[in-house]
Amino acid sequence: MSVLVVGTVAFDSIETPFGSAERILGGSASYFALAASFFTPVRIVGVIGQDFPEEHLDLFSQRGIDLEGIKRERGDTFHWRGRYHEDINVRDTLELHLNVLSGFVPQLPDRYRDAEYVFLGNIDPVMQMEVLNQIRRMRLVVCDTMDHWIRESSTELSKVLQRIEMLVINDSEARLLSGYNNIVRAARAILKMGPKVVLIKRGEYGVLQFSDSSVFATPAYPLEEVFDPTGAGDSFAGGFLGQLARSGDQSQRGIRRAIVYGCVVASFTVEDFGVKRLTTASLPEIEERYQRFVQLTDFHT
Amino acid sequence: MSVLVVGTVAFDSIETPFGSAERILGGSASYFALAASFFTPVRIVGVIGQDFPEEHLDLFSQRGIDLEGIKRERGDTFHWRGRYHEDINVRDTLELHLNVLSGFVPQLPDRYRDAEYVFLGNIDPVMQMEVLNQIRRMRLVVCDTMDHWIRESSTELSKVLQRIEMLVINDSEARLLSGYNNIVRAARAILKMGPKVVLIKRGEYGVLQFSDSSVFATPAYPLEEVFDPTGAGDSFAGGFLGQLARSGDQSQRGIRRAIVYGCVVASFTVEDFGVKRLTTASLPEIEERYQRFVQLTDFHT
Repeated sequence: MSVLVVGTVAFDSIETPFGSAERILGGSASYFALAASFFTPVRIVGVIGQDFPEEHLDLFSQRGIDLEGIKRERGDTFHWRGRYHEDINVRDTLELHLNVLSGFVPQLPDRYRDAEYVFLGNIDPVMQMEVLNQIRRMRLVVCDTMDHWIRESSTELSKVLQRIEMLVINDSEARLLSGYNNIVRAARAILKMGPKVVLIKRGEYGVLQFSDSSVFATPAYPLEEVFDPTGAGDSFAGGFLGQLARSGDQSQRGIRRAIVYGCVVASFTVEDFGVKRLTTASLPEIEERYQRFVQLTDFHT
Repeated sequence: MSVLVVGTVAFDSIETPFGSAERILGGSASYFALAASFFTPVRIVGVIGQDFPEEHLDLFSQRGIDLEGIKRERGDTFHWRGRYHEDINVRDTLELHLNVLSGFVPQLPDRYRDAEYVFLGNIDPVMQMEVLNQIRRMRLVVCDTMDHWIRESSTELSKVLQRIEMLVINDSEARLLSGYNNIVRAARAILKMGPKVVLIKRGEYGVLQFSDSSVFATPAYPLEEVFDPTGAGDSFAGGFLGQLARSGDQSQRGIRRAIVYGCVVASFTVEDFGVKRLTTASLPEIEERYQRFVQLTDFHT
């Protein structure tokens, strides 16, 4: 079962305490697609500029990622520059050039419109809604957002929230969206806005999942080296939705296991700069770390 | 199997965003003892002043806590005043009056000296060593410490670390003690200092346990109301060691389950001011929440 992702395909320039990288492949759709592609076929909808190199497109193709939905426009590709602090959980955005992303209106190729699993990456809610309106059939829509859209586009975002099944959001965004400081209250308030399931990402501390009938909490996979946290959240979402599509199991048990797969894939991403580790990891490695994760957290058996 | 705790018995004056409390019962030994007393008999070693009311001693006695090791000295009881921020994970110490605690030398009653389970609460490492030297027989020593002793008494602390089995410490203290920012590296470095097991408390994010052969990670129990986090760490330690003493099971499985019991007891503590919730909770309530914790975290079965 294939997964459709709409989001950014970008250049990232990154400084961490351990090194720096200039204009490497980034963007929410890139991380999501590479992460999900371990589990299931992926289709990307996004926009790139004339400066976007063929080698990145080749990388996607080699992973079986369908690129018909990627549009190349006149101009430069979206470019983000950020710096991580000594405390790697804190980062500053130094530059943000929307370039071809400004004014982008997603256009789904006709054969994308029967999309059973959809991930609306962190882009303007107006674009997210545009994608929803173009899809004929959907089984599960998972959505991400960020502080900027919560502050500046709350009306549009609230319409999107009413049409999705699951929201993936980090803890500070959940607080901002709900107005509650306590994360359990925040999640409960967000459930009333539309989504049936809220997944709260807490970085190195793991993930909380809330629905009306169930709460699930998992730690993250503890790593001795966190090289570059960029894309961890989108890798989580890709691993999560990829596994859900692979298993077809949307029971609470299936969702919980998919969350753990998401954490496992994200743990690979942060081990190297940008998408690098996602391109060297293998499904057997992922399955092995999943088993370690089982051992890491098990007091049940 | 009884548990011996040495630590502070104190007055706390606390302000949180939800209210304030003046000169209520506090101190590491108080929280630890009440928490552990759900599971096993407890003996306290500590010092109080002439101003310490009988009603607090009665409370301990009602819970079967042995008070022969509590010494009443001329002067006032140790008093801490603190204020929690809107973000309840952050607090400032406003006042700290050692009073009778300064110059205190723990003296174990003779019948305490065959202590199988020992908790060295967060006090001067010189006092912790004094206790160790007075004990004839011990099966398991668990120790806590804090930034002040790591900075000011590192030589004494390192001697204590060589004589204990388990260190319970929060994440920022682990970073300070080890010199590593990454928490996995920090824990590995601390294991080299003596303890066989390092338990890293991460507040609302849960606990990590490291030994040479095993890593265990658990989230905390998610709560809709965190009223007052004071004493959560000592309650965790009390629930943990109390359960270990009750079960007698120091296998990795037994340790993991005890960690979860510790998290459960701490989740009660923070639901009300001071030790209040520890005095109204019951063992059946604790067992019920333990079962909820199993469901909360289970993707294994």
